[in-house]
Amino acid sequence: MKFFVFVGTSVDGFIARRDGAYDFLGGDEAETHGYEEFMAGIDTLLIGRNTFEVVAKMESWPYEGKRVVVLSRRSLDFSRIQAPVEQMSGDPAEIAKRLEASGAKHVYVDGGETVQEFLRAGLVHKLTITRVPVLIGEGIPLFGKVEKDVRLRHINTRQYRSGLVTSEYEVIAEG
Amino acid sequence: MKFFVFVGTSVDGFIARRDGAYDFLGGDEAETHGYEEFMAGIDTLLIGRNTFEVVAKMESWPYEGKRVVVLSRRSLDFSRIQAPVEQMSGDPAEIAKRLEASGAKHVYVDGGETVQEFLRAGLVHKLTITRVPVLIGEGIPLFGKVEKDVRLRHINTRQYRSGLVTSEYEVIAEG
Repeated sequence: MKFFVFVGTSVDGFIARRDGAYDFLGGDEAETHGYEEFMAGIDTLLIGRNTFEVVAKMESWPYEGKRVVVLSRRSLDFSRIQAPVEQMSGDPAEIAKRLEASGAKHVYVDGGETVQEFLRAGLVHKLTITRVPVLIGEGIPLFGKVEKDVRLRHINTRQYRSGLVTSEYEVIAEG
Repeated sequence: MKFFVFVGTSVDGFIARRDGAYDFLGGDEAETHGYEEFMAGIDTLLIGRNTFEVVAKMESWPYEGKRVVVLSRRSLDFSRIQAPVEQMSGDPAEIAKRLEASGAKHVYVDGGETVQEFLRAGLVHKLTITRVPVLIGEGIPLFGKVEKDVRLRHINTRQYRSGLVTSEYEVIAEG
């Protein structure tokens, strides 16, 4: 089983403003930049509570046809969600065990804190980062502290007319 | 007169570790990635005190043949420097006026705080950022707060076998 991150950020590394708004990411545009190909390879989504609360308010459920697991210790309101959604809590290693045992193969990890936790735990296999050409100065950062340097292997970078730049990295597992 | 930024960072946006070390940037390697071409177009370097203190300790003066201005309110020890170095202090707009009046045309702004101040003041014309494939988690960040979004125009991105990715952006002047 492998964990993947696929995310849009400002050039200064924010995935959202402080209040969660992500207007600066250019809306739907970012989604045409490899998102469909990426999602085609994913069977399970693992999202944090904050991300869940954002997508729960969307007009249409963005994860149609995928298994969705929300990480939260608090109880969540699933009443408005028509799709099947599970809840789990625990540290990344525990979550990984439970997901693997229940058949997950390619897991998309999304949401600031969740991504940071899984990176820190050395569990992320690949990172695909799309940089949107703007500096917003403050907000919710993609990256956080790590216990030691996390070495990456650059796989490929693509640039788009819109000014978006997408870089794909594999996390080099520590020997 | 125009201000340029040309800098190497980790994928998580740090130009140095907390103690100023930049071992993770891969040493000389980064300098072969467009640095010489970039420097050929530069007549003046504007660096902060921290950057000055780092380069002052280097075996050879890295800015040979360029006018060098160090931004600092404190007095600096120029005794070990064989090259001519000037000192200035003031806010970015004042510095820009003095540099322009004294004939500077293409100014390389270097050093974390100095870059952030000039970006905040809307004075940077172009940013060239080379991302080194590593996450270091904490250190001296390239970017800081801005008063409002700074929109960028992506010019070009190059990727190197070493895994380094260099993106060039123009800052879009506010109308």
